[in-house]
Amino acid sequence: MDATKEASVTDLKRPREEDANGEQTKEPACFSSVIPGWFSEMSPMWPGEAHSLKVEKVLFQGKSDYQDVIVFQSATYGKVLVLDGVIQLTERDECAYQEMITHLPLCSIPNPKKVLVIGGGDGGVLREVARHASVEQIDMCEIDKMVVDVSKQFFPDVAIGFEDPRVNLVIGDGVAYLKNAAEGSYDAVIVDSSDPIGPAKELFEKPFFQSVARALRPGGVVCTQAESLWLHMDIIEDIVSNCREIFKGSVNYAWTSVPTYPSGVIGFMLCSTEGPDVDFKRPVNPINDTSSKSGGPLKFYNAEIHSAAFCLPSFAKKVIESKAN
Amino acid sequence: MDATKEASVTDLKRPREEDANGEQTKEPACFSSVIPGWFSEMSPMWPGEAHSLKVEKVLFQGKSDYQDVIVFQSATYGKVLVLDGVIQLTERDECAYQEMITHLPLCSIPNPKKVLVIGGGDGGVLREVARHASVEQIDMCEIDKMVVDVSKQFFPDVAIGFEDPRVNLVIGDGVAYLKNAAEGSYDAVIVDSSDPIGPAKELFEKPFFQSVARALRPGGVVCTQAESLWLHMDIIEDIVSNCREIFKGSVNYAWTSVPTYPSGVIGFMLCSTEGPDVDFKRPVNPINDTSSKSGGPLKFYNAEIHSAAFCLPSFAKKVIESKAN
Repeated sequence: MDATKEASVTDLKRPREEDANGEQTKEPACFSSVIPGWFSEMSPMWPGEAHSLKVEKVLFQGKSDYQDVIVFQSATYGKVLVLDGVIQLTERDECAYQEMITHLPLCSIPNPKKVLVIGGGDGGVLREVARHASVEQIDMCEIDKMVVDVSKQFFPDVAIGFEDPRVNLVIGDGVAYLKNAAEGSYDAVIVDSSDPIGPAKELFEKPFFQSVARALRPGGVVCTQAESLWLHMDIIEDIVSNCREIFKGSVNYAWTSVPTYPSGVIGFMLCSTEGPDVDFKRPVNPINDTSSKSGGPLKFYNAEIHSAAFCLPSFAKKVIESKAN
Repeated sequence: MDATKEASVTDLKRPREEDANGEQTKEPACFSSVIPGWFSEMSPMWPGEAHSLKVEKVLFQGKSDYQDVIVFQSATYGKVLVLDGVIQLTERDECAYQEMITHLPLCSIPNPKKVLVIGGGDGGVLREVARHASVEQIDMCEIDKMVVDVSKQFFPDVAIGFEDPRVNLVIGDGVAYLKNAAEGSYDAVIVDSSDPIGPAKELFEKPFFQSVARALRPGGVVCTQAESLWLHMDIIEDIVSNCREIFKGSVNYAWTSVPTYPSGVIGFMLCSTEGPDVDFKRPVNPINDTSSKSGGPLKFYNAEIHSAAFCLPSFAKKVIESKAN
């Protein structure tokens, strides 16, 4: 299949994969249950519900070594990036996720200089890291080159992050990258992963968190995508327990609103290593908006919403605080 | 059509309305676009997107004088109440909406005694108001008796609010009810309405807000359902402008996460009349959880999430604060 071919919305109604001989085989799972002309997001991670977006045009359909990659123009959410059937970003609401996963950790420590991003191949987190004038080096390890290429082609306002001269992009396995990273070398690690089904599975496991802790300086911070309070309290409980064991500083859970993510929210684990105290709830490093030439003004993040993100509903607070403290 | 008849999930796939002679006419709008066996929520209020829930069994389908009323058992969100094709509550996430719309106003003033609820026919807001031991009288005006009856039949944990002896239920038009209410008689008015398409239209208009202000005592408070920041900034701007004109105390917007509402969030307008200052962001009347025998412990609301609800993303903060101050 030509990974760069454009398909019309008519193709979407009955999309087919072709084998090496050009013969039609099966429908890709990601489009199998749609309302005709719509993309529906279904997953065993959120059984019994589906969020659907009306498709104007399929812009890209490809299969990388790791996952199915789709880009489509939606009717009301702008362009949409889908990996293995799951929405990763839409132009309309990507600001919330990218700004929060980046500035929650970076605004919580003074003068971050060296930052590592694992995953995040669309470049949005890089765009946000680049707003911090103190940062001197931004390393990124993304496993799937197709995600980077597709973002550069279809999401220029997101992929603009790659243009910052401080960025060093490595295409490779984040787990291996972290194992080989110099001990105590990063001020912050941001793990912008997909769900723990598929290529990101290991990024939710204990050995990975151990490598993160090893690569951070004393009092360094990590922020990792940590699913939905409404849907995945069991996964979150495990992550919190693992982090509490591994990170000797503070361990916190924050969340924010992202309409096109399942249940409309996404959470973040924020932890610090032993060393200078980090109080994530009280940001010490306000962002200097004018420092970014590329990203335009912040759309979502501000100091108040930073602190508010750590206020949890009672049903989650009880469980998380009992494991985190 | 027998409003109390139970239908199987097979009926749902191709639901039909019957006319007086039992002949099939047209499919009800609310099920016309579903994935077979699923309920899909589509509306001109959120074009180009739809949230779908898997249906185990349709428990009730009726048509009141005001709207289509449906109750179904979903696969993963418990029982679901749908009015005119729009999800009003699910057993899994109703706590967030009911607790926030009630305790944001009632925890912001000392000793609320007389409370009026407009709409809210499912009884969930009553359940929450009843937690406040200081409250002596709870008046409710709901336009649609079928909503009350259906809630009592299918949502006993929500409709339990009706059992409180302080409740006076009037079936009627909330706009007229407020016009006739004694001036300055209520400490708090809670407007638990559906969207401004259909029977709730007038509850978003200026004359209604004027009646609310008239019925409140000096320094009294109103909390009204106020749509989604992500979808309805134009509606919200209008509501804020109207409220700023009418309420001479404070005018604030808060929001919270409700997974089964469009874009995963719902907002609230919180205003006070001229009189003793009300600082909604700093609750002065912490809720005494043990005061409620009926509702069980709070699942969502706490004092921190109260204050956090007023922290808005930058894109909304700018617009709302320019109109509210």
